[in-house]
Amino acid sequence: MENDHGSVVEDHGVEMSEQGQITHRRGKRDENGSVETAKASAADQEMEEMTSIEKVFEGKRVPPWKEQLTFRALVVSFVLSIMFSIIVMKLNLTTGIIPSLNVSAGLLGFFFVKSWTKILEKSGLLKHPFTRQENTVIQTCVVAAYGIAFSGGFGSYLFAMSSKTAKQSSEATSSQDIKDPQLGWMIGFLFLVSFIGLFSLVPLRKIMIIDYKLSYPSGTATAFLINGFHTPQGAKLAKKQVKLLGKFFVGSFLWGFFQWFYTAGDNCGFVNFPTLGLEAYKNRFYFDFSATYVGVGMICPYLVNVSVLLGGILSWGIMWPLIGNRKGNWYSATLPTSNLHGLQGYRVFISIAMILGDGLYNFVKVLSKTIPAIIAHARSKNMASTLPLTENGFPATDATISYDEQRRTELFLKDQIPKKVAFVGYLIVAIISIVTVPHIFPQIKWYHILVTYIFAPVLAFCNAYGCGLTDWSLASTYGKLAIFIFGAWVGASHGGVLAGLAACGVMMNIVSTASDLMQDFKTGYLTLASPRSMFISQVIGTAMGCVIAPCVFWLFYKAFADLGVPGTEYPAPYALVYRNMAILGVDGFSSLPKHCLTLCYIFFAGAILINMLRDAVGKKWAQYIPLPMAMAIPFYIGPYFAIDMCMGSLILFIWERLDKTKADAFASAVASGLICGDGIWTLPQSILALAKVKPPICMKFLSRKTNDKVDTFLETLS
Amino acid sequence: MENDHGSVVEDHGVEMSEQGQITHRRGKRDENGSVETAKASAADQEMEEMTSIEKVFEGKRVPPWKEQLTFRALVVSFVLSIMFSIIVMKLNLTTGIIPSLNVSAGLLGFFFVKSWTKILEKSGLLKHPFTRQENTVIQTCVVAAYGIAFSGGFGSYLFAMSSKTAKQSSEATSSQDIKDPQLGWMIGFLFLVSFIGLFSLVPLRKIMIIDYKLSYPSGTATAFLINGFHTPQGAKLAKKQVKLLGKFFVGSFLWGFFQWFYTAGDNCGFVNFPTLGLEAYKNRFYFDFSATYVGVGMICPYLVNVSVLLGGILSWGIMWPLIGNRKGNWYSATLPTSNLHGLQGYRVFISIAMILGDGLYNFVKVLSKTIPAIIAHARSKNMASTLPLTENGFPATDATISYDEQRRTELFLKDQIPKKVAFVGYLIVAIISIVTVPHIFPQIKWYHILVTYIFAPVLAFCNAYGCGLTDWSLASTYGKLAIFIFGAWVGASHGGVLAGLAACGVMMNIVSTASDLMQDFKTGYLTLASPRSMFISQVIGTAMGCVIAPCVFWLFYKAFADLGVPGTEYPAPYALVYRNMAILGVDGFSSLPKHCLTLCYIFFAGAILINMLRDAVGKKWAQYIPLPMAMAIPFYIGPYFAIDMCMGSLILFIWERLDKTKADAFASAVASGLICGDGIWTLPQSILALAKVKPPICMKFLSRKTNDKVDTFLETLS
Repeated sequence: MENDHGSVVEDHGVEMSEQGQITHRRGKRDENGSVETAKASAADQEMEEMTSIEKVFEGKRVPPWKEQLTFRALVVSFVLSIMFSIIVMKLNLTTGIIPSLNVSAGLLGFFFVKSWTKILEKSGLLKHPFTRQENTVIQTCVVAAYGIAFSGGFGSYLFAMSSKTAKQSSEATSSQDIKDPQLGWMIGFLFLVSFIGLFSLVPLRKIMIIDYKLSYPSGTATAFLINGFHTPQGAKLAKKQVKLLGKFFVGSFLWGFFQWFYTAGDNCGFVNFPTLGLEAYKNRFYFDFSATYVGVGMICPYLVNVSVLLGGILSWGIMWPLIGNRKGNWYSATLPTSNLHGLQGYRVFISIAMILGDGLYNFVKVLSKTIPAIIAHARSKNMASTLPLTENGFPATDATISYDEQRRTELFLKDQIPKKVAFVGYLIVAIISIVTVPHIFPQIKWYHILVTYIFAPVLAFCNAYGCGLTDWSLASTYGKLAIFIFGAWVGASHGGVLAGLAACGVMMNIVSTASDLMQDFKTGYLTLASPRSMFISQVIGTAMGCVIAPCVFWLFYKAFADLGVPGTEYPAPYALVYRNMAILGVDGFSSLPKHCLTLCYIFFAGAILINMLRDAVGKKWAQYIPLPMAMAIPFYIGPYFAIDMCMGSLILFIWERLDKTKADAFASAVASGLICGDGIWTLPQSILALAKVKPPICMKFLSRKTNDKVDTFLETLS
Repeated sequence: MENDHGSVVEDHGVEMSEQGQITHRRGKRDENGSVETAKASAADQEMEEMTSIEKVFEGKRVPPWKEQLTFRALVVSFVLSIMFSIIVMKLNLTTGIIPSLNVSAGLLGFFFVKSWTKILEKSGLLKHPFTRQENTVIQTCVVAAYGIAFSGGFGSYLFAMSSKTAKQSSEATSSQDIKDPQLGWMIGFLFLVSFIGLFSLVPLRKIMIIDYKLSYPSGTATAFLINGFHTPQGAKLAKKQVKLLGKFFVGSFLWGFFQWFYTAGDNCGFVNFPTLGLEAYKNRFYFDFSATYVGVGMICPYLVNVSVLLGGILSWGIMWPLIGNRKGNWYSATLPTSNLHGLQGYRVFISIAMILGDGLYNFVKVLSKTIPAIIAHARSKNMASTLPLTENGFPATDATISYDEQRRTELFLKDQIPKKVAFVGYLIVAIISIVTVPHIFPQIKWYHILVTYIFAPVLAFCNAYGCGLTDWSLASTYGKLAIFIFGAWVGASHGGVLAGLAACGVMMNIVSTASDLMQDFKTGYLTLASPRSMFISQVIGTAMGCVIAPCVFWLFYKAFADLGVPGTEYPAPYALVYRNMAILGVDGFSSLPKHCLTLCYIFFAGAILINMLRDAVGKKWAQYIPLPMAMAIPFYIGPYFAIDMCMGSLILFIWERLDKTKADAFASAVASGLICGDGIWTLPQSILALAKVKPPICMKFLSRKTNDKVDTFLETLS
């Protein structure tokens, strides 16, 4: 029981830091919007105005991409990047639990620039008004920058290489398994690996956002917030949406605040509420009162939510308990639950196998349609502008495209980032890395890096795709996979521990920037920000992050001599976890628990088969076949967030039954309010944690039996 | 801390059993109803239909009072009385915590008779349709009958007299302080004391219900439920109300069910949620998630809710902490918190002093206006029918009386219960008691009973009045007062312990039947049931209860040899509590803690002064002066229910701000749904408790410090 809980907490840590953002466009809603247009009454016009955000913004000029990238935006981004990097770094080194701060970035960006422009406006010096595109650019830049503070692994893989962490571990303390932090190589390493993610997915942004219409709920919510801030005066009904968003924002924020008071200690508070009973809770079936995931569930299509729940039931409801019964037979009974050689191994590897199967299928599918299109494109240069939607082989069959979608697609496709830039960029960075990384880590050979960079786009695609569906970025899971594969490949005798950790860094940086990037592109799509200005802002932000994050870490490292020592102020708890993982990893696939590999093959194949089935039966039936990618995510994390999301679905479903028009007009605003309020709360929460203000009460859940014992114990205390 | 909690739980027990029901009519709402009538659109007509329940029932004939008292109703009442008596008795003897089952009585009565009439209807044998008046009669009869199972004191004062309980107490085990249960004297005693309450308040029903317009929230809610069941076909908008009531009913029921799962052990579950922090919780400031009291707050006028909260702040926020600081000086520091010689003494006695002050003022005021009216009435016999509203000296100043109010008042005054019946009845019962009770308890002399019966009407009035305002019946508090007064008067050497307990019985029976009666009259008023049929039904119910309750107890007593022994299945925990109280009581007022009596005088006078002020300043300002009666109730119980009620007020306030018309039309339905759903849940909850199905989880709230210790302890367990 204790170990079990311990592992839940650990996972929470990893999972929370994995939270990216999601943004799926609901084609359905747009269709309704245009159906509504057919009628002509005033009320319908109101509704039309409400469902069409871009109609409200029609009078507002969209500045060209260069004007979106203002100097003031970069200054504000820089200041915010430092601030958020410090917060994330402190959290890295204290608890290791890092919440998503994206919404805070958007909000604070708005307030900084808005105050600045207001002062200028009063003094008559304002040249360019503050636009929502500029707001998006700031948000993008800050997210890119502080993302490095997480994916740089200062609390995990990177610090795991240090002698300090090595001392705490019983094995692998030879010099070839140790590399102590130095400002120089850290900055260099980050520069080498952080840009790959950007380049690898840029060419695919149109497929993800426009063709696949992925949700990216957090990105959508952020866009709603930004659009809300910039709604022009006089747009009466858009104001209604903003007002509703505001109400749910405040409610969600206060709910987060209220919850905080009851979280003194582990396993305390509403996030550990065994809503469905203690047995279900042990298998992670519970509603955890997360406003964020209820909101995410309202934005994601029903199919995604149902798939996630199905995956949760299949894995945590059936498979893991069954495999758990084989304890002592399939795997050693003495292992702690979090050990990859035990049950956790099945969870991680089967989950990844299924994600890879789905991702690979989609990647190949996209590639098989993109390459001919690119060839055709090369033959006739105008084709892209005349038939933008069919360029990738996806015909624009949807006849009822709404005004919003038209306008957004138009602007999203206007400022292209030449594919050449992406390919050449990728190639250059790859070559430099292949040459340089082995100098930083002699344990890694050039062919290791080459192989990584060949497979990286697929994995980046998988993560960005999964994140688009369910709002979960599984960056650290891919990182763990890398530890395992490369550790085994290099072998214990050749410094496999360090090689594994370094490979983990490469992998985490690639997949995490890829999903962040796509999340931001979704925000940009919804706020009419130019992809070009977004991309440049991301490049600048990443560059900032590559310098800021190591510097902040260096400050901590030099200022606190006992950094990384358990029991101190900055224990950096995950460093040891990662190192131990790497030590286990060098044993290779043979050390996986029994039948794990077989099961991985089955689920890998299953994911591909389900996808083929979905494509074969046509659109009508495909909507009843679950998505393997969405199913795989709870395999590892647990189904509790699936229950949150289904709760969101349920709310939306009932609302649509009661009042379809209102639900269509306001559901996104409500969902965004829920996500953003909870998101902003993480900022004061982090500050409270850093200021060592601890919550006063623990809301604990005990079984009757344990409770009786505790009551007896408490009597002896008083 | 432990002791503190212990006492909270004990109090809960007493308080829960004290829960009567409330039913305040909001004059305001009716005024709005008639304002709405002025407009003539269809929507307004709809609203008019909605706000006027009696318009909906206009086509339905109200049967004369004799037809309301059908044989089938009495049969069903008898069956339900036995069922509820068994449930209450078992709870009496196990935990001592008895919830209010009034709503269950109304509901089950409906289903029994409805099924019965449906069968008859199909076979063509149905002579009289099932009316809401008949339903009310059943509910009234059952409440009166099972009420005796509580006020008979089988788990408290009556069993406290037995030798079994005496053995557990260290003192007063001489034969004059012991009286073992016997079927004969128990039935006789109950018959003697249970009817006094009925007779003493019957003449005042008009003042309470029509002139004072007291809320009686539970009674109102029950009436709403009964009206809802019998709403005629075709009343479209009344159906809307019923539907909303049904939704909140189900919601409230499920909420009760959900809460249950987390209540394994003491201090567990939502009812112990320290919503405002642990410090506030210790002083009983918290929101306890009770759907009942939120509903009650929606029915009670704002003034009542604010008064209750003010009283809570004055007592638990200021006075008790200040007095608590004098611990060791004003009273012994070694006493447990629940001891009447300590802080609890201040709570109980100051609360009672204030209630008595308010009650006495209003009683004298009513009497001073009633007596001249009665004299005038005697002179001209017709007066009552021509000027019904001014009979008691309260002029019918309210010019805008709604249709509902008119019709209800008309029927409420139609079937009078002659005042002579009440007076003669009271006199006869009093004389018989004075003669007989000293034979049952030789320790009590005839003059003790005489004094009791002189003061009883005032106390009955106080309790019924307070219950009408806030839904709290403080029967057991009055009982404790009686233990104290009579125990001291008789003295330890003359069997004061037993005299005190017996007096407690007399007092509890009087005040508890009085408030139940008035609560039922409110239900009758709102369902157009004849007061005469109600009164007769109550008399029959009380008589049933006087036989059923002792028989049920006798069964338990004979069947379980270890009844009343701690640690067994039926420990009857409150019996010992009451006996100990009586042992303390014989020491008299001198044993009260320091300054307690002085404070009692001050608050007694204060209550009278505030009332005089309220009368002096006129209606306009009186609405800003709190009600002493409402203020006094949290003095003893704690302010948590005041917070629930204010939450109800807040919801209503916001609703009224958002949509006044809808709020006026639906607020009562929502409130009734909340109260009734929670009320019905108590039935399965009781059954679960009796079947020994215990909740599986404890939701516990610990301070961070304690939590750390508990976590360490739990680690040693696993």
